[in-house]
Amino acid sequence: MVGVIASCGLLLHSLLAGLGRRAAGFARKVGEIAREDPRRVVHSLKVGLALALVSVVYFVTPLFNSLGDSTMWAVLTVVVVMEYTVGATLSKGLNRGFATLVAACIAVGAHKLAELAERFGVGEAISLAVFVFFIASAATFLRFIPEIKAKYDYGVTIFILTFSLVAVSSYRVEELIKLAHDRFYTIIVGVLICLLTTVFVFPVWAGEGVHKLAFGNLDKLAQFFEGMESECFGENTGTDNLEGKDFLEEYKSVLNSKATEDALCTFAKWEPRHGKFRFRHPWSQYQKLGTLCRQCASSMEALASYVITTTKTQYPAAASPDLSSKVRKTCGEMSSHCAKVLRQLATATETMTVPPPANLLTVSAAMKAAECLRSELAENAAILQVMHVAVTASLLADLVAQVKEIAECVDVLARHAHFKKPKDARRDVAVDILSRGRSGPLPDVVIQCAE
Amino acid sequence: MVGVIASCGLLLHSLLAGLGRRAAGFARKVGEIAREDPRRVVHSLKVGLALALVSVVYFVTPLFNSLGDSTMWAVLTVVVVMEYTVGATLSKGLNRGFATLVAACIAVGAHKLAELAERFGVGEAISLAVFVFFIASAATFLRFIPEIKAKYDYGVTIFILTFSLVAVSSYRVEELIKLAHDRFYTIIVGVLICLLTTVFVFPVWAGEGVHKLAFGNLDKLAQFFEGMESECFGENTGTDNLEGKDFLEEYKSVLNSKATEDALCTFAKWEPRHGKFRFRHPWSQYQKLGTLCRQCASSMEALASYVITTTKTQYPAAASPDLSSKVRKTCGEMSSHCAKVLRQLATATETMTVPPPANLLTVSAAMKAAECLRSELAENAAILQVMHVAVTASLLADLVAQVKEIAECVDVLARHAHFKKPKDARRDVAVDILSRGRSGPLPDVVIQCAE
Repeated sequence: MVGVIASCGLLLHSLLAGLGRRAAGFARKVGEIAREDPRRVVHSLKVGLALALVSVVYFVTPLFNSLGDSTMWAVLTVVVVMEYTVGATLSKGLNRGFATLVAACIAVGAHKLAELAERFGVGEAISLAVFVFFIASAATFLRFIPEIKAKYDYGVTIFILTFSLVAVSSYRVEELIKLAHDRFYTIIVGVLICLLTTVFVFPVWAGEGVHKLAFGNLDKLAQFFEGMESECFGENTGTDNLEGKDFLEEYKSVLNSKATEDALCTFAKWEPRHGKFRFRHPWSQYQKLGTLCRQCASSMEALASYVITTTKTQYPAAASPDLSSKVRKTCGEMSSHCAKVLRQLATATETMTVPPPANLLTVSAAMKAAECLRSELAENAAILQVMHVAVTASLLADLVAQVKEIAECVDVLARHAHFKKPKDARRDVAVDILSRGRSGPLPDVVIQCAE
Repeated sequence: MVGVIASCGLLLHSLLAGLGRRAAGFARKVGEIAREDPRRVVHSLKVGLALALVSVVYFVTPLFNSLGDSTMWAVLTVVVVMEYTVGATLSKGLNRGFATLVAACIAVGAHKLAELAERFGVGEAISLAVFVFFIASAATFLRFIPEIKAKYDYGVTIFILTFSLVAVSSYRVEELIKLAHDRFYTIIVGVLICLLTTVFVFPVWAGEGVHKLAFGNLDKLAQFFEGMESECFGENTGTDNLEGKDFLEEYKSVLNSKATEDALCTFAKWEPRHGKFRFRHPWSQYQKLGTLCRQCASSMEALASYVITTTKTQYPAAASPDLSSKVRKTCGEMSSHCAKVLRQLATATETMTVPPPANLLTVSAAMKAAECLRSELAENAAILQVMHVAVTASLLADLVAQVKEIAECVDVLARHAHFKKPKDARRDVAVDILSRGRSGPLPDVVIQCAE
């Protein structure tokens, strides 16, 4: 008996300790997220503030009496319209206001038509249901059009919502116009509270986010070139293992920046003039720059994977040390030129100053160095030829290694997802012809086994 | 006078013609989008159907009487919960139902606390506003935690919404419990109508989308290798311009598949067993496969850009035709092996059969071919050395060209966004030392000009 109580006590104790550890871990995580970007805490408090403000509208009796039950719609509007950036809030607020207005008008029209139809013997409920069906279907289809999806997706949803609500209510509500008016008015109150809070209390601008992302990306690309110069083309380098070095990791975040960038750009287009940004700031040019940066990062990935592979392999001493050191020097130059250009572009973008004209000159210096290298190698035709096939072969070999990884991944998938065995009873028996040392294409040898 | 009328007529005519052209263009676009994926039309009709069904709940009197005004919440639920895929609808529906329940309970608790506080002299309205402020702030902050954002973002929003609505209404509504109960009940009705329509009327499964994306990606990668084999390493190839060829375009869509894949996987995890997919299908393994495919596509980009550049350049006749043709043959082999492996993996994934064991053998054949090539080149130490520097230099030269494009892009941005001129009065004067033919590093020469 005592034993049972003791073991229960132990169990309880370990359970509580486990819970405590979990809670501590969660608290640490929350702290990290807050410290990473304190604007998140501010945003959370802003949402609380906006909701507290809107509840005041409800609590203060004269305001409540004039609007009635519709006040609830202000609360609803604040919750769904309030977003992290000014642009997102503006876009949602304007979409919501405008869509509600249009939808309410059309719904009142539908109500009148339904009343008219009743005179011809069609029940009002039936014609209302038919209207709802067709208009909701058509509006839903509009959401599949990319241009509408990008800017007005939320507006169309609200259009469907308001139209259905008003059209359906019209069946029972007497004062339809008053209802539509009250609802529109409360939504405007909600949107205004949201806008005031986002714009005037520590605003977070989507445009600034786009801007920061742009020069951050340029900076990360510059870091790669600087790393390449010091770690790969320096005087006494080439022997360390490069895997896991910072400069070979930083550029990777550029590769996945598309989704964030697109979202921020969409919202930035809704924002009014603020700080250094005019109303018609060329946001789409930032998107073009982002695309180029991502292409560059993708080429960096190829170079990085090649460099990492080769530093792991032992190479024989240079047979032509002259040429080799010359090429290494030129590569170092190209890297340092590129790093410099990118750093300057990053600074120019950050401070919004015109990049110095010397910049384009540095680029041409790098281009020229590349050209010189090529022509130097071209003096020896055999080398050039070899170089061409060698580059292709090396890149292809890299791809082969990746295909191997893909094949292994699909194998794991086949196991976990319980892929079925091939239907026919033959078993593919792998015959290792390779061990004979042939390098020709591998014939598909399938030996049928009687089981 | 006649002239004015005539020109007005012309203007009207051209305006109408312009409108007609626009309308025709829009209609053509709508037709294209519908033909591209007819499931979109079906989805639109399903949304219409669900809304028509829910309006029936409102029109039928006995149902209406028992639920009262809350019926509107069913309409609202249908509009916001109904999504394209079953998984998305399920995820939103369950999030909504569960969050409403929890929030309503907490709100009732908050109401009781506020009543209690009133006895101690704190106004009910004040304590309710304080509750709303703190709970809404805390819940909003939760949305920044990545794990919660990924799966429960909608649920937390609805929690904030319901909590605020119920807590604020509790100030005036007498029968709070009845209100909360009615609202919860109507939301369940809305969610059920959505689920019935999405699951039983031509369901669109997110899991199927993930699956299709996976084998589609593998297929596109295979296409690249097939193209490489026939267009670059074939017997009589190498002279055409490769730009714009299909196989050099297809793989690019793989690069941008991450966002779609992530969204579909999130929803797929909510879906019940359907067709070939069990309940705990390893969806995250598909994401791993997707990452590998994108890495492979990114390496393909490097190879493609190299191949396109070199086919534009005239090369001298092969100095060592033997080696050159040997390398080309091996490259062809590697490509065909890889293409074969990927096609088989694509088929295996599509049909959900275990990939044949011969597959891994084909991969090792390709790996072996790459190894052979390397050792063959290594017999000539000078060539190997040159190859190493040549590959690095060539990849780097590619990067230089991309940096140039980035610099040009920033220049355009600087013009469009009216970047300011640098502050100091010195003008950077570009001095073209390059024309002297030096290939050393470019010194930063800045000549100060008195203006």
